[in-house]
Amino acid sequence: MSATENGAVEPFDAVDVIRAKRDGGRVPEDALRWMIDAYTRDYVADAQMAAFAMAVLLNGMDRDEIRVMTDAMIASGERMSFAGLGKPTADKHSTGGVGDKITLPLAPLVAAFGVAVPQLSGRGLGHTGGTLDKLESIPGWRAALSNDEMTAQLRDVGAVICAAGSGLAPADKRLYALRDVTGTVEAIPLIASSIMSKKIAEGTDALVLDVKFGSGAFMKDFDRARELARTMVELGTDSGVRTTALLTDMDTPLGLAIGNANEVRESVEVLAGGGPADVVELTVALAREMLALAGQPDADVEAALRDGRAMDAWRRMIEAQGGDPDAPLPVPAETHVVTAPRDGYVTRMDAYGFGVAAWRLGAGRARAEDPVLHEAGIDLHAKPGDRVAAGQPLFTIGGPDDSRFARALEVLEGAWEIGDAEPDRSPLVRERITAS
Amino acid sequence: MSATENGAVEPFDAVDVIRAKRDGGRVPEDALRWMIDAYTRDYVADAQMAAFAMAVLLNGMDRDEIRVMTDAMIASGERMSFAGLGKPTADKHSTGGVGDKITLPLAPLVAAFGVAVPQLSGRGLGHTGGTLDKLESIPGWRAALSNDEMTAQLRDVGAVICAAGSGLAPADKRLYALRDVTGTVEAIPLIASSIMSKKIAEGTDALVLDVKFGSGAFMKDFDRARELARTMVELGTDSGVRTTALLTDMDTPLGLAIGNANEVRESVEVLAGGGPADVVELTVALAREMLALAGQPDADVEAALRDGRAMDAWRRMIEAQGGDPDAPLPVPAETHVVTAPRDGYVTRMDAYGFGVAAWRLGAGRARAEDPVLHEAGIDLHAKPGDRVAAGQPLFTIGGPDDSRFARALEVLEGAWEIGDAEPDRSPLVRERITAS
Repeated sequence: MSATENGAVEPFDAVDVIRAKRDGGRVPEDALRWMIDAYTRDYVADAQMAAFAMAVLLNGMDRDEIRVMTDAMIASGERMSFAGLGKPTADKHSTGGVGDKITLPLAPLVAAFGVAVPQLSGRGLGHTGGTLDKLESIPGWRAALSNDEMTAQLRDVGAVICAAGSGLAPADKRLYALRDVTGTVEAIPLIASSIMSKKIAEGTDALVLDVKFGSGAFMKDFDRARELARTMVELGTDSGVRTTALLTDMDTPLGLAIGNANEVRESVEVLAGGGPADVVELTVALAREMLALAGQPDADVEAALRDGRAMDAWRRMIEAQGGDPDAPLPVPAETHVVTAPRDGYVTRMDAYGFGVAAWRLGAGRARAEDPVLHEAGIDLHAKPGDRVAAGQPLFTIGGPDDSRFARALEVLEGAWEIGDAEPDRSPLVRERITAS
Repeated sequence: MSATENGAVEPFDAVDVIRAKRDGGRVPEDALRWMIDAYTRDYVADAQMAAFAMAVLLNGMDRDEIRVMTDAMIASGERMSFAGLGKPTADKHSTGGVGDKITLPLAPLVAAFGVAVPQLSGRGLGHTGGTLDKLESIPGWRAALSNDEMTAQLRDVGAVICAAGSGLAPADKRLYALRDVTGTVEAIPLIASSIMSKKIAEGTDALVLDVKFGSGAFMKDFDRARELARTMVELGTDSGVRTTALLTDMDTPLGLAIGNANEVRESVEVLAGGGPADVVELTVALAREMLALAGQPDADVEAALRDGRAMDAWRRMIEAQGGDPDAPLPVPAETHVVTAPRDGYVTRMDAYGFGVAAWRLGAGRARAEDPVLHEAGIDLHAKPGDRVAAGQPLFTIGGPDDSRFARALEVLEGAWEIGDAEPDRSPLVRERITAS
């Protein structure tokens, strides 16, 4: 017990909590809950939490500690509930990738089966895009909804993609900013609790995680991505949310569009029954998982793409948030086409390189307060495994003018390769992880 | 490279430095020097330094990193030099113990051989006493000296025991305060650089370390104490200071007096050629090491205690700092004697327990700004290995009144034992560590 200056008595001491983790032990449940709560109250200092985060990174946390820590972060803010809707809810979270527009076709597709999808999304930062940035390419569409508007839209339309309010897990927001400057971002228990605290607080019944690995992913290494996926599936399950994860390849951009407006266009193609094979494959795989967790393991997902039910849900979802689904999307005023220098097979298109290039074109932002250029981005005309002839277009970069092209082309220089042999194709969905 | 808000460009990024240590690597010399300097300039935040300190605690530092870090801490402040004195300098540092008054007889003893002893000391905090607190029992004696006064006294008297100015290694002061609240005090590279940065900045040619292990020591574990001793001997040697360490037992209080005035009284007994055997043994052993490093390996140390040369140096040292060596020292107005409940051998007197009891009596302080009670303390009448009869006095506690006796007696309850068998005696000086 230690007394504060104003005489209040704290039941634990931050140094004892730090030492327990530092020495490789478990932190008892009440002490861990206190640590997060006291940090939120500014009783535990940033320096103390930073030392604790480093000890967690180097010594780990067990399954129960991760659950308790996540629950304490949820308890720091509001907790939503859609129990009154009278229908099951299911959500998806992706750890982020290049060309990852899957949320756009996925949410209305799942909603077409009577499952509510309360998708709270973020904006892009760095080389991965943000779902809200993409949707804001649609004239009139707005990301900010009140809780009442969100509930009404889930009831009437079934799908919502909107901005997460600041009321969910505020402790996570503060801890994330701290981890960012103290070299402790990479701790799997902290990544898992950061992601899952917001998803659990959001009040979904079921959650499917798209955990990416490869050059364009946050976790480049497959084994680390698998560890993160397992940790999050266990955490969701232990917290009463039915959770499944797919481990998916992010060495190559998803689909043919990387940017904002062009990714919306590609999503609408998928909703119309077309679109690139990999985007369709992943959308269908994730929809099947969400529907299975919501009690519909045999739903014919592909039929809803073919027969217009998913497209109808999309149109209602966009309209409900003020968007015009028929309005023309912005297109780049200036473009530049890169062509194949020789005959051969495209052997590599590096997701990280293309992601950074799209970011430099203005599709992403360097600082959280920067705007994005909705028309900026890259359209691919070939993908790894495709045979190309010399002079054939490989990809087009675009933007409002050509002022950013040189820096984008610079990073693209080493980001693709043409070879003589047809490359091996690796499966897009590498592994499925379910609760044990 | 990262730019600060005012446009200045920093050559390194704190997160990169933290990551290097976190991932088990070496931090390059220029990056490590920058980290300490930038922390002193408030560019690197407490939270970043705390994460770095935890990574150092868990992943260690190699010999060269410790030297560089220490040198960077020295560079944060002033560096003293006694090169103009025309005589060799030697100093001693103890990691702290209970009843550890060795500096008091040691400094004048070594000075009696023409070696200057620039002993910068601290005050007690917690269960270990402080050299300055003990000396302030002497009426008139003052701890604060200017650099010029210190130099003059070293030239004229040869020995100085005074307070370290705040100008030496200010980075260490800040880092120590941070470590104290972030569970990173125990990192051996950080302990070593904290102690040695001040000793090296003090400008001594030679240094003897008294590294204690056992219940009353900062490092209770012998192997950890040995690792600390080796690290500091290497660090001193690498930094151009001839350094030796003795590993000494601190399971039992040193001598028979624990407090302030009573420890001065015991020190004067040693300087008069008497005193408890263990205090004499350690004083002589440390003096021999200091004199050997100062070029007098064959000095007859015990003769200087017998023939009054050490006592003369003591009197001149005390007088030079305004103290009256003949003034009566404060004595406790109230005392309480604890007697042996049965016949037998004293088998244990636990240094930590007796240290905490003396602290509770008022000989030490709970907060840095508290005063100490110079007359408070404990006098032992028997030590482990002594045979006692039922009713024979074991120790006396004392203070200005008896208001603190109950809490002191409470902690003393389990701090001593009487058994039937004569206990094994362990050597006081367990090991000697020299530069390799």
